[in-house]
Amino acid sequence: MRITFDADDFDTRLRAVRARMAEQGLDVIVCTDPSNMHYLTGYDGWSFYVPQAVAVAQAEATPVWMGRGIDANGARATTFLPETHIAAYDDSYVQNPTCHPMDVMAAELRRRGWDRGVVGMELDGYYLSPRAHAAMQAGLPNARFADCTGLVNRVRAVKSDKELACMHAAARILEAAMRTAIDMVDPAKRECDAAAEILRTQVAGLPDTGGDYPAIMPLIPSGRNTNAPHTTWSDAYFQRDTLTIMEIAGAYKRYHAPMARTVYLGEPPQKMRDAAAIVVEGVDAALEAAKPGNTCEDVEAAWQRTINRHGLAKESRVGYPIGLSYPPDWGERTMSLRPGDTTELRENMTFHLMPGIWQDDWGVAISEPFRVTAGGGARFADVPRELIVKDV
Amino acid sequence: MRITFDADDFDTRLRAVRARMAEQGLDVIVCTDPSNMHYLTGYDGWSFYVPQAVAVAQAEATPVWMGRGIDANGARATTFLPETHIAAYDDSYVQNPTCHPMDVMAAELRRRGWDRGVVGMELDGYYLSPRAHAAMQAGLPNARFADCTGLVNRVRAVKSDKELACMHAAARILEAAMRTAIDMVDPAKRECDAAAEILRTQVAGLPDTGGDYPAIMPLIPSGRNTNAPHTTWSDAYFQRDTLTIMEIAGAYKRYHAPMARTVYLGEPPQKMRDAAAIVVEGVDAALEAAKPGNTCEDVEAAWQRTINRHGLAKESRVGYPIGLSYPPDWGERTMSLRPGDTTELRENMTFHLMPGIWQDDWGVAISEPFRVTAGGGARFADVPRELIVKDV
Repeated sequence: MRITFDADDFDTRLRAVRARMAEQGLDVIVCTDPSNMHYLTGYDGWSFYVPQAVAVAQAEATPVWMGRGIDANGARATTFLPETHIAAYDDSYVQNPTCHPMDVMAAELRRRGWDRGVVGMELDGYYLSPRAHAAMQAGLPNARFADCTGLVNRVRAVKSDKELACMHAAARILEAAMRTAIDMVDPAKRECDAAAEILRTQVAGLPDTGGDYPAIMPLIPSGRNTNAPHTTWSDAYFQRDTLTIMEIAGAYKRYHAPMARTVYLGEPPQKMRDAAAIVVEGVDAALEAAKPGNTCEDVEAAWQRTINRHGLAKESRVGYPIGLSYPPDWGERTMSLRPGDTTELRENMTFHLMPGIWQDDWGVAISEPFRVTAGGGARFADVPRELIVKDV
Repeated sequence: MRITFDADDFDTRLRAVRARMAEQGLDVIVCTDPSNMHYLTGYDGWSFYVPQAVAVAQAEATPVWMGRGIDANGARATTFLPETHIAAYDDSYVQNPTCHPMDVMAAELRRRGWDRGVVGMELDGYYLSPRAHAAMQAGLPNARFADCTGLVNRVRAVKSDKELACMHAAARILEAAMRTAIDMVDPAKRECDAAAEILRTQVAGLPDTGGDYPAIMPLIPSGRNTNAPHTTWSDAYFQRDTLTIMEIAGAYKRYHAPMARTVYLGEPPQKMRDAAAIVVEGVDAALEAAKPGNTCEDVEAAWQRTINRHGLAKESRVGYPIGLSYPPDWGERTMSLRPGDTTELRENMTFHLMPGIWQDDWGVAISEPFRVTAGGGARFADVPRELIVKDV
């Protein structure tokens, strides 16, 4: 399969972004989140460890990519932008305490006359440092500054058919990777061997669907670590009579389908089987509630009602939107499935429903990536949903 | 092998950090770079997609970890800190536009009386947003603020014996991963299949040395993309009669040994063989200059003199320090091997010497991770250094 995003796709996205900019009184936005840079231009590359940005102005249809000189060829190769809209800083600006790449980017915006009115920057996003922000402010003395964190991310919430096709492809890869993961959790294997085979499956993908790197490395907390959900792996062997939670994603063209499953090696205590059954029941209730017109908090409430009936409660949020992403996070960082988030769900919004039951020294998580449909949340991937018990 | 960092190691590091803080007039530093957090406490986990920090005060020997509630167990499992020095915010603060995790962290610092005098923050590091910085400033009205970007990173420059052992372990993994990479560049393979096998080798590591995830995914620009060095991979097959540059690292306990090699599939044009020979000659000259007492720019000058003799020049910096790291970068972001950096080299500083010759539509890179010794730069890894020619 081959899904390509063309100039029409980017035009649609840019129109939607400019409409939101108009609502918020923004003349220019300078996006530094690599996911947003990709969404607006197609730019792809592991270059987000140095300052880079895509600027969008109300005054002009075409955005500008700004980045490091040695990455300009990457911009030429991956974006739809003409040469006139690719602006680079030279390498002397990299990690140099006496100057900042944002100095050059500010000069580029001034040259274009994009330094008037209100300029939005992503003040709580990834890869914009306080010093970068200050350098841009110093370089644009005629601008007023505003926070546009989440503006592009919110445009990304409802997925196009092509985007959904990417996520379905990611889900096929996820299914294969989760099969590998379940297979590799074994007392004869080290955690690093399991992570290695999971990554191999994620990145190779399928014969007709090459995989991309996930924005988060495999999380496979095992034993006592199942109460520390962001543990990656060690070189220890998996232990008999313990739980392992595996949270991994399939990724295709930077679109993600993440999922968690829990494995027990041996004969699990009844309380863990019970917890898993409650989680699955709660997932079904939450998916049932994930219809257009309901809100984010309605989905959480459906989950909470279910577990409350079993005398349990979970404090953290139970999900977040997913899609196009770069490290360190595959979430879109806009809505949350939790009390107080009254955002109305719309058809083809996509989420990771990530519920679990965590006790002092063990935990069970069984999650689903899903799409909002009139019939409720439609699961992207088909993987068995019980506590996975391996007889070892 | 098993290398463990104990309380003594952290004590040594913290003393060195407090000495630098004193030099710079800092009473407290709040480190948000996950590499620095790990260096100061041992904290490990893929949780840096939410705000978290380690604070160090002149007034007290023990630092404080501050992060998300569900990551506190990870801090208990991976750091030497007592329960009194682990402070968590609840999940309602995550990605919530009406409050900020830094509000809670500021309250924790106030509670400890660490809100007086000068508080340093890493204003040009990763994972500190302008909004996070502003929230901390608002929460510490009695403090003056300063920029401590690079302070801990510079302490990290000279490696201890245990750290060097980790880097040697990483180099063994690198050697295996590079063999895999060379093997997988083949017209019968897709780029994603090569990336998959490289990652498998990196993460599985060796029988007695489990691998860790590298801070940068495999970069394997191929064909015309060799002039875009931060390209990851696609699902296209490798093409005959093209170059592929592979830049990958071995990682062990978050310590890195990165390297680039270049492969030609078929019979390479003489100009590419010549370029590779020049690069290797330049590497040898640069390593020869990498002795204590010489400076960063001396190393670059040795490289530059060599290639100038062949009528060539390269504009970007040719290397940077390496060691403990998290995504998005395996560099330490302090020194640069380039003109103008007069930092004096010291025994057991560690660098990635990353030279290459890039033309309009092709490039050759042959790099080395090395340690500064009295005899010059000592290579960590033993991998053939010529243009690798595969007859296909």
